[in-house]
Amino acid sequence: MELIRSVAEMAALGRKWRAENLRVGLVPTMGYLHEGHLALAQRAVGENDLTVLSIFVNPIQFGPSEDLAVYPRDLDGDLAKAGAVGVNYAFVPEAEDMYPQGFGTSMDVAGVTETLCGASRKGHFQGVCVVLTKLFNLVQPANAYFGQKDGQQLAVVRKLVKDLNIPVHIAGVPIVREADGLAKSSRNVYLDAECREQALVLNQSLQLAKRLFDEGERDASLIKAAVQAHIETAPLAQIEYVEMVDAVTMQPVRRPEGQVMLAVAVRFKGTRLIDNVLLG
Amino acid sequence: MELIRSVAEMAALGRKWRAENLRVGLVPTMGYLHEGHLALAQRAVGENDLTVLSIFVNPIQFGPSEDLAVYPRDLDGDLAKAGAVGVNYAFVPEAEDMYPQGFGTSMDVAGVTETLCGASRKGHFQGVCVVLTKLFNLVQPANAYFGQKDGQQLAVVRKLVKDLNIPVHIAGVPIVREADGLAKSSRNVYLDAECREQALVLNQSLQLAKRLFDEGERDASLIKAAVQAHIETAPLAQIEYVEMVDAVTMQPVRRPEGQVMLAVAVRFKGTRLIDNVLLG
Repeated sequence: MELIRSVAEMAALGRKWRAENLRVGLVPTMGYLHEGHLALAQRAVGENDLTVLSIFVNPIQFGPSEDLAVYPRDLDGDLAKAGAVGVNYAFVPEAEDMYPQGFGTSMDVAGVTETLCGASRKGHFQGVCVVLTKLFNLVQPANAYFGQKDGQQLAVVRKLVKDLNIPVHIAGVPIVREADGLAKSSRNVYLDAECREQALVLNQSLQLAKRLFDEGERDASLIKAAVQAHIETAPLAQIEYVEMVDAVTMQPVRRPEGQVMLAVAVRFKGTRLIDNVLLG
Repeated sequence: MELIRSVAEMAALGRKWRAENLRVGLVPTMGYLHEGHLALAQRAVGENDLTVLSIFVNPIQFGPSEDLAVYPRDLDGDLAKAGAVGVNYAFVPEAEDMYPQGFGTSMDVAGVTETLCGASRKGHFQGVCVVLTKLFNLVQPANAYFGQKDGQQLAVVRKLVKDLNIPVHIAGVPIVREADGLAKSSRNVYLDAECREQALVLNQSLQLAKRLFDEGERDASLIKAAVQAHIETAPLAQIEYVEMVDAVTMQPVRRPEGQVMLAVAVRFKGTRLIDNVLLG
């Protein structure tokens, strides 16, 4: 596997691959790779002529009170893991190279960014849109891979690509979980033993929602109340949101039609975890 | 020359040309083509395997009190002119196809969009950025051609392309003028005989600025005052701005260093004309 540190070098390779008509897969990550990332990478490796995995803790998608400075990093470990699943290139740019002095472009995708994480993390998805647009333009992938774990991000990217006619196919990949059901996340490393144990209520509550839905329940407020009640059985759980939204528009629904996403964000001693389940 | 009306068809052709490794030139226009547009098209035809000229009066770059509804249109004439200079494809989409129901993406390029036309036409360059990003993604051109007439637009596009790493080369093409010096513009058709005559002060004042600059004058306020005084010799002229800005950053300068742009916007009986000259 080859390590690319420079934006200019990445752009030159993207142009070269395009001229050679190679089908390129892109897996954008913030590093500290876990099995969720590796599931994206494995799928990319299987579907493309070559795969680029980017590792970039994108500063503009973090709010001033968020965990940018302490976000976990392990470049050596990441490169070993990515190489082991067949990734061909790791693109690991510096922030100063991605956002040089005088950088001024901003983006927003109205409609899908106001609810859920967009409501509490102001500017988050705007920063996500900018960095992904840059990565798409640099790598020029045919396919880009995103985890369903960040369900709203996936919806935002799909809307961005559709609105701007970006020539890339967006693949959503199912959530990968620990054996006990906790969704894999780089931020799980923040959890102490007590939080780690209590965090199991997230997936449990989503499974409860799925059971209710599968049994025919279509009152969103009732399903959300059941989810909330289960999460509240964990004394350390501080709920940020429990919401049921349309899977494409991210707009809250009262009675689910088509595919919906039941999504939760919960803090445990300051560590913010998100999880979701698709229904219908 | 082939006429493409559908966004989906344009996207499919862009993908096909990319797979065939064709060097594509793009000339984005709002139609009602004049010799300025044709100079862009001729250069594109000479430098690329094939040239796409787009004709789209982009609604989102017009303010509510601007001339969207009455903007001059002549599709048959445009197609004949574009075909005559060797353009291969005219892309003429409908607004509903470019901005379907639910469209929500917005963009801004801070730094270059606040001065000059950006100050008086709120939202104008934001709309320009969105439509050009869409056109770049649909056509996937190697080169895109813009007139120096819209000098700030050229600076905005260059900054957008740099910030977002868009894989397109931006070519700026000198202003084309009528025999008497008036810059070619689709909006010149709005001018009655009296305004048409008096509008000559624009180019005259810019030539005066160039003469002062070439003679060594480096006091921007003095050069601007001379330009303003000359424009004011036309009784119908209502000055919106006379400004000297850095040619890259579009920031006002007091003493020109490197390349600067002396730019003017003047109304004649409601018709807004812009013109500029590069100095240094």
